[in-house]
Amino acid sequence: MKTEGGPPLNLNPEPHAASDRRRLRGGAPIQIGLLGCGTVGGGVLRLLAENSGYLAERAGVPLVVKRVVVRDLEKERVSALDRGLLTTSAEEVVDDPTIDLVVEVMGGETPARALIERAIDRGKGVVTANKLLLAAHGPALIARAAARQVDLAFEGAVGGGIPIIRTLRDAFASDWVERVTAIVNGTCNYILTRMRDTGASFEAALREAQDLGYAEKPDPSLDVDGHDAAHKLIVLAMLAFGAQVDSGAVHTSGIRTIEEADHRYADRFGYTIKHLAIGRDLGDSIELRVHPTLIPKQSVLANVSGVLNAVLLEGRAVGPSLVYGRGAGDLPTAVSVVSDVLDVARSIASGVAGMQGRGMSIKPRRVRPLSEIVSRYYLRFAVEDRPGVMGRLAGALGDAGVSIEQIVQQGPTKASQGAAPAGGAAAREPAVDVVLITHDAQEGLVRSALDAIAREEFLREPPHLFRIEEP
Amino acid sequence: MKTEGGPPLNLNPEPHAASDRRRLRGGAPIQIGLLGCGTVGGGVLRLLAENSGYLAERAGVPLVVKRVVVRDLEKERVSALDRGLLTTSAEEVVDDPTIDLVVEVMGGETPARALIERAIDRGKGVVTANKLLLAAHGPALIARAAARQVDLAFEGAVGGGIPIIRTLRDAFASDWVERVTAIVNGTCNYILTRMRDTGASFEAALREAQDLGYAEKPDPSLDVDGHDAAHKLIVLAMLAFGAQVDSGAVHTSGIRTIEEADHRYADRFGYTIKHLAIGRDLGDSIELRVHPTLIPKQSVLANVSGVLNAVLLEGRAVGPSLVYGRGAGDLPTAVSVVSDVLDVARSIASGVAGMQGRGMSIKPRRVRPLSEIVSRYYLRFAVEDRPGVMGRLAGALGDAGVSIEQIVQQGPTKASQGAAPAGGAAAREPAVDVVLITHDAQEGLVRSALDAIAREEFLREPPHLFRIEEP
Repeated sequence: MKTEGGPPLNLNPEPHAASDRRRLRGGAPIQIGLLGCGTVGGGVLRLLAENSGYLAERAGVPLVVKRVVVRDLEKERVSALDRGLLTTSAEEVVDDPTIDLVVEVMGGETPARALIERAIDRGKGVVTANKLLLAAHGPALIARAAARQVDLAFEGAVGGGIPIIRTLRDAFASDWVERVTAIVNGTCNYILTRMRDTGASFEAALREAQDLGYAEKPDPSLDVDGHDAAHKLIVLAMLAFGAQVDSGAVHTSGIRTIEEADHRYADRFGYTIKHLAIGRDLGDSIELRVHPTLIPKQSVLANVSGVLNAVLLEGRAVGPSLVYGRGAGDLPTAVSVVSDVLDVARSIASGVAGMQGRGMSIKPRRVRPLSEIVSRYYLRFAVEDRPGVMGRLAGALGDAGVSIEQIVQQGPTKASQGAAPAGGAAAREPAVDVVLITHDAQEGLVRSALDAIAREEFLREPPHLFRIEEP
Repeated sequence: MKTEGGPPLNLNPEPHAASDRRRLRGGAPIQIGLLGCGTVGGGVLRLLAENSGYLAERAGVPLVVKRVVVRDLEKERVSALDRGLLTTSAEEVVDDPTIDLVVEVMGGETPARALIERAIDRGKGVVTANKLLLAAHGPALIARAAARQVDLAFEGAVGGGIPIIRTLRDAFASDWVERVTAIVNGTCNYILTRMRDTGASFEAALREAQDLGYAEKPDPSLDVDGHDAAHKLIVLAMLAFGAQVDSGAVHTSGIRTIEEADHRYADRFGYTIKHLAIGRDLGDSIELRVHPTLIPKQSVLANVSGVLNAVLLEGRAVGPSLVYGRGAGDLPTAVSVVSDVLDVARSIASGVAGMQGRGMSIKPRRVRPLSEIVSRYYLRFAVEDRPGVMGRLAGALGDAGVSIEQIVQQGPTKASQGAAPAGGAAAREPAVDVVLITHDAQEGLVRSALDAIAREEFLREPPHLFRIEEP
């Protein structure tokens, strides 16, 4: 109405400097430089080729892959790749003035970080699935992109095919995220699912996961010790809580300490053990932690099995909201990367690059120390089976101000079975498990009770502690 | 790079006519006209007021509510409303040339449809949460908005606070949605959850839902007979399968026929009964149906309880992807509406209105008749307890080419208990339930077997048939 049919009368500067570029684009294709051509990169090439017509319609202009950066020019690649596009020089690609959009799927910090910074500085849109890089340098990269008014998109970085970044950024624009509870590591979730369903030990389930390609060989520690989940939690916290945090601030523990017995007891109390990434916005501070957690069996997260991932958000207005799907794999992640490519390409083609990230505020926030968090706890003690032990355990917790909801004793344990045939030494009482569920308690108080209990001679092994959540 | 620092040299026409408008906007606020101020409208006003600073940063310009259309000027409203904005004249608002964006939260077809069309024709962006209207006229409204290059957004229409529209439109841009399996009616889900968990009858659970405000009084039929879910399935099919379909083409059945016994048997076989909206893309045709369905107890959908909603998508590349949350309520729906307002406002402010919906293709598609679908079935027959009955039932199914996976007999039934004290008539054998689970079978074959069985004099009541899915 206001301007329809009329010539552009007002030539005042506009809010977006990108607008000048727009006038010059016309219908020219968006030229893409792809950094990396492994499984995800191959999936991206395949999806771009298979959906080229539809994507061009949605973007308003064709999307064309101009160069593909690889380390090894001779290696076998997906059939969707035109080998004439291959180069080993990433710098050449990010410096190429005809390339509009750089897709980084190499992973790792070096040289990905420098390449992304260089692409941003040269005014290119960037799509990346690099969670490690984003966990370490996300806020700086986002600020760099905002200053240069280009888009930096990273839907593929967390939860593979799950549209969690988009959901946090767009769907929750008018809400306040109070809590994030997430299964973001498919390796851990697969191992825990197999332990629960088949009674397998951690070691056996890990070997199975390795044989199926779900866990790294020979060193699965990035996954099973929780570091990968911690990286993803940092990225989620950046969007959910506007928080800039170091990975050192995230309490991170893995799943190696979970034994078969823990799955059995959890089941008996009505829980399933999941490896969760948990974030909470407490106003003055945030809570960020990655650890095995007991959650009620009938909760939705408890039923996210195998390699699947899920992120549960609790919004002040919207209430609980969960997204769920494949957390890894070439095609799921590639679908997320290509959805980002479409968004960024469309913005470039329309001269509104940098629009999506506008107004996002990310700043350092205090992370509450673990000793201050309040939770319910599952505690398992392998103890000698003699009168008074349960009372001593309960008493130590009571002295620390921790109140108990349930307590059961069950035996004999693995430890006692191992001890019996050893012979020679003075015969010890058979060992049993005492398992406790506490009411809400501050972790510091629970730890001080455990310190007191550690001095008891009836304790056969260090206690097992897992937190309980009701997501 | 290409144009940096240089003047706009190329004045060729651009792909988007909206661009002229952009030059004139500068930083002027986006003026909003709100049609309707009930629970959702009140929530929208509240969220716009509470998040005004953040939304202005994200949109690039302030978002200002200019007029609010209501029927009753005197009625009590939310405190976020400036009563000076109230008017009873919707036409005046959609005709007001200073209003950029119309938010329709009145519901119903009349006058919402005419007002939205008029707003589109006048070049305004439109946000609506009106599923009834979209089910009936979605493709025409989308085409109208595309022709006029304005945005029509409707995240609030399906699944309240669940970002399913955005997920289908953006996250799945490079994927092919093969299947949609959704719990989209909170009333049905609440009633079924209560029946399962407490053993209540349909009538008792419905009364409870009505007392809690989860079901309409006195007539809950829009929800419990499946019509509301059918409307939402049509909207989902429009985005997932690009399908334009009449509501008459969706097989729709509600939950009134489910008895307590069905929940008990479902549980024994390892299933939960959920009221599902199911869509499938079969290439040459689509399947669209809304009905009670048995799904495995440990599936994620089976654990979506109470008034919560969930939509499970199966993408060819991405695999399963689920979004879950509150399906109704003022604030969850308002969060979705405001996320749309932000999107549409930002596009208007940046001069790229109409960009999001670009390239979406919606056309009539053949809906496969129910008789042709292939499913597994749960069949319950209340029959006289006498030798040979089970054989006759199994035989009739076998004759029709339907093979049986499990069969159990259990008695006595409600019918037999009722029949006994009636006396007078010739004593009949006590009635029992025979419950069958079939292998995959074409529905037409199952129906023909049921026709044959209907002629058997041992049948005490019409058989209960529910489909089984493994989502």
